[in-house]
Order: sequence, then structure tokens, then C-alpha cells
Amino acid sequence: MARTRRSLVTLLTDFGAEDGYVGAMKGVIYSQAPGVTVVDLSHDIPPFDVQAAGYVLAGAAYEFPPDTIHVAVVDPGVGSRRRIVVAESDRQRFVVPDNGLLDICRLRHPMQRWIDVTSSGEGSVAAHRPAAPTFHGRDIFAPVAAALARGVSPHRLGRRLMSVPWRLPGAPARRRGRRLEGRVLHIDRFGTLITTVESAMVRQLARIGDLHVRVAGRIITTWVRSYAEAARGVLVVLLGSQDWLEISVVEGSAARRLRAQRGDTVIIEARACRRT
Amino acid sequence: MARTRRSLVTLLTDFGAEDGYVGAMKGVIYSQAPGVTVVDLSHDIPPFDVQAAGYVLAGAAYEFPPDTIHVAVVDPGVGSRRRIVVAESDRQRFVVPDNGLLDICRLRHPMQRWIDVTSSGEGSVAAHRPAAPTFHGRDIFAPVAAALARGVSPHRLGRRLMSVPWRLPGAPARRRGRRLEGRVLHIDRFGTLITTVESAMVRQLARIGDLHVRVAGRIITTWVRSYAEAARGVLVVLLGSQDWLEISVVEGSAARRLRAQRGDTVIIEARACRRT
Amino acid sequence: MARTRRSLVTLLTDFGAEDGYVGAMKGVIYSQAPGVTVVDLSHDIPPFDVQAAGYVLAGAAYEFPPDTIHVAVVDPGVGSRRRIVVAESDRQRFVVPDNGLLDICRLRHPMQRWIDVTSSGEGSVAAHRPAAPTFHGRDIFAPVAAALARGVSPHRLGRRLMSVPWRLPGAPARRRGRRLEGRVLHIDRFGTLITTVESAMVRQLARIGDLHVRVAGRIITTWVRSYAEAARGVLVVLLGSQDWLEISVVEGSAARRLRAQRGDTVIIEARACRRT
Repeated sequence: MARTRRSLVTLLTDFGAEDGYVGAMKGVIYSQAPGVTVVDLSHDIPPFDVQAAGYVLAGAAYEFPPDTIHVAVVDPGVGSRRRIVVAESDRQRFVVPDNGLLDICRLRHPMQRWIDVTSSGEGSVAAHRPAAPTFHGRDIFAPVAAALARGVSPHRLGRRLMSVPWRLPGAPARRRGRRLEGRVLHIDRFGTLITTVESAMVRQLARIGDLHVRVAGRIITTWVRSYAEAARGVLVVLLGSQDWLEISVVEGSAARRLRAQRGDTVIIEARACRRT
Repeated sequence: MARTRRSLVTLLTDFGAEDGYVGAMKGVIYSQAPGVTVVDLSHDIPPFDVQAAGYVLAGAAYEFPPDTIHVAVVDPGVGSRRRIVVAESDRQRFVVPDNGLLDICRLRHPMQRWIDVTSSGEGSVAAHRPAAPTFHGRDIFAPVAAALARGVSPHRLGRRLMSVPWRLPGAPARRRGRRLEGRVLHIDRFGTLITTVESAMVRQLARIGDLHVRVAGRIITTWVRSYAEAARGVLVVLLGSQDWLEISVVEGSAARRLRAQRGDTVIIEARACRRT
Repeated sequence: MARTRRSLVTLLTDFGAEDGYVGAMKGVIYSQAPGVTVVDLSHDIPPFDVQAAGYVLAGAAYEFPPDTIHVAVVDPGVGSRRRIVVAESDRQRFVVPDNGLLDICRLRHPMQRWIDVTSSGEGSVAAHRPAAPTFHGRDIFAPVAAALARGVSPHRLGRRLMSVPWRLPGAPARRRGRRLEGRVLHIDRFGTLITTVESAMVRQLARIGDLHVRVAGRIITTWVRSYAEAARGVLVVLLGSQDWLEISVVEGSAARRLRAQRGDTVIIEARACRRT
């Protein structure tokens, strides 16, 4: 691999900041890959919330330079037999537990390669020390990321997997005639519902006729480009900055207004043909 | 511009850490300005609190090396017609919404130059993609900062502004004879009141006579150099580490004790002439 | 000192993230030691909790490359006459208040050298500006760290100390015959009790016979290697990732279950000889 720039390694965890776990991972990476730059994405993912981590990762990872290594440790299965994998798509590389964390990334960026690196803690080129069964972040994820940053080929870290199961419920969104069906993918801290419906699918359907959105028993017809276009308290639909359809209350919480939850069905329908 | 050191870009936002917004901005900056170092100032500014962001920025920015680029996105007006500006003072550079965020910096460091870069998202040298109307942080602020870090002249990013309105209420502090009048600028998490009254003004007034401080209907006469000089629970005045006059309760909260709020008037008076 | 790699400076504080204090320290370090990389360990140590800071530091510091400089500012004594010291052990360097913050590190890594740098703010090679009595982090700790990062010898920053008092209550753990006695060192955010009893001591004692653990009036006999080995709600003992004996409730809180507190006595006993 050509090393034309300093390697970047991003970290995303649910470790919080008050214990020393994140610091230990950073120490291992800096020790084993001198010259690397470690970048914090977030350490405040709600504990064990794999889907929230997947959403955050999907929104940030593809903004980074090619060959960035993204380490995401939200891993309720630490110490069990779950696998740890290296995956690659669109020149971004990931080191993650095999628990669906990459499924939201996969909605748009199919993974080109999966490598099982679970046993890399037991004597591979990335070995560090015998892996503590309660802290794979420090003893497997970090050394594997450092090995990739040093230019070690993923193939030397484990064996290739032909496929990896899909775990995100109900995704991706589908079009059937005049109708798109998706789900609530994420609720952000402002109460905005981010859905699995992609902006491009919405734009295509809009050629047929005016669109309305159904979610949590309500019909929404107010489309805006930005929050500044509607008055405070109005329930609106927009195509968000990550190119998902979003449902929002201006300066309020759509989640609370609609009592909506992650996984709820979202339907977009074209009502009437414009040409009539 | 001479590039004698690695460029630094600092980030200050109210995005919090649990969503992926900060990560996306970092990715854009690292992608568009390879070799830059991105430094987190804070992402925990209370949502939409422009003045708190201005205070944090003023306390940190001028400690950084010359030519550091400070990106601050606390921006209730995203998507509206508010401007985005690049400003320069004392060899620090800022990329901010034009909403008063730099006013506390301006109390001591007049801005030498303002450039309106609002439309840089629409095809300038800093263009990245068509700016999403809900995420200017990623699509305008970050690419503008990256362009500056690459050495692009601010003039190529927009047109020069002759002036920018002042929005901070009641600032700066003024002297009238034996009296200084200022305001509460910020209340920190320990409940300390930081005021707009500069230490240098206070030292000058102290040549006339003993000083007392009036705030929230109380008169305070206990001056200390550090908290260790007074007993627990005592209400004290001191010249703080950022060279503002501060009002504090030792191991307690001055804000609670005085029921003081940001914007409250603070008066310092010289009581008697020492020479009589 | 040979400078074969970029210097790293880590920061650990109780400053929180919503004020600008951390940013100011970073600015000073980047200004006075160009080319350094500043790494956040944590800024969310509970206010003034020196022991929690010591635990976090001990878990992370020794993962970093040799000659990393660790700055920890949890300092209830700021402005008083407490000393500020530079210490070295196992090729890691520390800049800390002399308040016991390094005691948990010292349990395993004796300090080879202590230098009193308290007065370095008053005109030494690391001088920055007259130190504000309320912000030694910016005006003493950060400039001292920057001086070390530039390769200045610690001896030029102050005078050597022959010893530094031990302040951690009851540490380290001791073995007496068939019995180890230690204390609860830290309670993490999952409610796990981390103790001062080292894994190596436990392994040694286990050669004599089966071990049970007594803490907070309870006897625990369920030993696991990882949480995945026991059912939800079970109270277990394990040798943790930092090589301390830990007491945990699977997917629950041992601290709450046992009403245990930091400093509580923990006893490990070998019950019967295997060879009988």
C-alpha cells in the first residue's frame, strides 16, 4: 500500500469518558503505529446501542480520506464467541465486532471484503499481549487497527469471510409503485426521526406526484428544505444532510410529538399524477 | 503565507458527542487539508448559546500558535440568510456565523479583517458539494477552514466586509471617574461570575482608593488572589486567569448565592482616596 | 534526549468540556512545543477526585510509547502551597500536583525520579507568563509539559526531591499466609469494584487451594474469565483487564448489590489445600 499521507485512525465507542478505557486504546495505537493520528468520533454512544453507533459511523466515515481506519467498539458480546472483523468499502476500512454495526454503512456502501480477525489476539502479526477477555478494545481492536495503519495487509490478520449476516431490522427501504416503505433508523438528540428512505428515492418518486408521508398514524405534507422555512412547532419532512428522509418538529421534538420509536414504519406515497 | 509549521484547526460546537456531526466535520477537514491537525475545544456548548461559545473561544483562541484556524459552529440561524464570515485578529483566524460569536474576542482583540464566505459553498475554491441547508458545519465551515489551512487567501473565499454589527449586550465595560461599569459575561460550571471588567482597568482604578464591587444588590469587599486565601463559603472578588474580574464563593456558587444572571450589571467603585 | 518520534502529551483533567480551560491548555502546549501531538485521556473526572484520576491514569499511561508526557490536573489545592512535580517511571513522564495522583501508578511502577517544578512559573526555562493563581493548568502544567516535549531536561525545571509522601489509603495489597488483603480502589460506571489486589498475587495464592473473596460482608466464590461465562445478575470475581481483581454483577452493579464503597476491605482466602 502506498503511504502518501499520515494514517488516520478514528475511534467510536460507548466507553464514556470518565474511565480510562479510551486512553488505553489510544496508547496502544500510538505505540504500535508511530506517526498515526487518532481521531475521536464519539465515546458517548448509549451503552451497547449497536444501531446508534452504526448510524454515527455511517454519517462520518465516508467524509474521511481514503484508507482511513475506523475502529468502532460497541460490543455487548465481548468475551463471548462473537467475531471481530475487518471490512472495506469505498476505500474506508473498518475494525468492528460482527454484530451489525456496519449495516447502516452497508445500506449505501457495500463492503468489498470481510476478514475475520477474532483470533489475531492469539499470536498473529497484530498480537500485543494475551487478550484480556473483558477488554478486546485494547487487546484486539487497537492492535489490529495499528497493524493496518502500519501497512500490514488485512489478509495477514485473519481469514476471508464470504459473507456476513445482515442484522438491521427491515432495511433497506423499498419502492413499490407509487410507494416507498422504510423505517425509523435513528432518533437524534433533537428528536428528529432519521429514516432508511434515501433522498434519491424520494426525488425520483416526486416526479410522479405530490408526496405525503405516513408515520406513527399521522400524515405529514409539509416539505421544507431547512428548518428556517417553517414556523416553530410545525411538523415537517425534509431531505436531511446525510441524504436520508427526516421528520422533524421545528425547535421541538418529532419523536415526542409522534411518540415515534426506532424501527417504526415510514411510508411515502405519491398522491396524484401531476399531468392530470 | 509562509507554512513553517503544521496547520492547526480547532473545533468548537454545540453538537454534543452522541451524534456523528463532529466526526463528519473532522473527516471533511482531514480530507481537504491533508497534514492538518484538528483540535477539539469543546462540543458541549449549551445548544444555541452563542455567548457561552464566544466566552470559551476568547479564553482559548489566543493561546494557540499564530495562524491557527478556529472554527466555531453555534448557529441557531443555519438555513436562514445569516452570513458566515472569516475574521482575523492578532494572527488568529476564525470561521464563524455572523451572530456575535466573536464579540467577546473583540473586547480585547479587534478584528483586522472580515470576509463574507457565505456563498463559498456554491462553487468557490472551497466548494465541497452543494451545501445541505441543515448542515453548514460540514459543507461550508469545514471546507472553508480546510481551504485556509491549505494556504488559500481569504480574499479568494468571499468578499470583504467593511464592518460587522456588535451584538453582545452592554459590552465593553466603561470607566467614569471613580467608577467602572460592566456586566456578567459568563457563569462557569462552578457558579463563578466572570464579568466584562478587565483586570487592567481594575488595577488602574485601585490607585485611587480601596475598591468595592456591587452586583445583584450586594456589596463585596473581600479581594483575594486565589481561592486558597479565603475560607469556604466566603464571597470574594478576584482578578481571574483570563484577566477579567470574577466574583466567586469559595467551594460554592456565587451565581446561586447572589441569584445573579448573565447580563447583570457589575459596578466597581473606589471608596476613599488613599492620600487623605 | 534522542527525538526519534513525534512527542505525545496526554491530558487528564476534571475541567469538563463546557468551559474553555482544556482548550487554553492545548493552545499553550501547541504554541510552546510545535510539532507535538496532544491526546485527550479524559476531562470528565469527577471534580477534585484525585483517586479516580489516578486510577484512569494508571490504566492508560503505560500503554503509550516511551517518553510520552502525561499531564494530569485534578488539583483541589490550586493556589495553595502544594507542590507541582515531574515524575518518571518505566519511560513514562508525568506532570502532576503532589497530591497522591500518582499513587495508583506507583503500586506497580515505582517512580525513578521526582522534580519539584512548582516555581517553574516564576522565571524558569518553562516560564510562560506570571502564573495566574487560579489556573496553574495553563500557566505551569502546560508550559512544563511543553518544555519536556521540546527536550528540556527535567533538572532544568526544578530541584530533585528525595521522596514524595504516599497518600492512597491502605495500599498496596498484602499477602499473609493463605490470605490476601486489599481494598476497593475504584468503582467504574458499570458498578464494578476494582481492587488493589493484583492478578499475579491471586494466581500465586490459587496454587494453595480454592479461593473465595470476602467484601462488604459477603463471600463470593464464582470465578469467571469473562462476563459471558455467567448468567445475568450473578455476582462474580474475575481478574480484570488491568490485572486487578475485580468484583462484578453480570449486566448489573456490584457496588449497588453489595453497597460497597471505595476503600472497603477485600480479602481473598485459600480455603483448602488441593493436595489433601
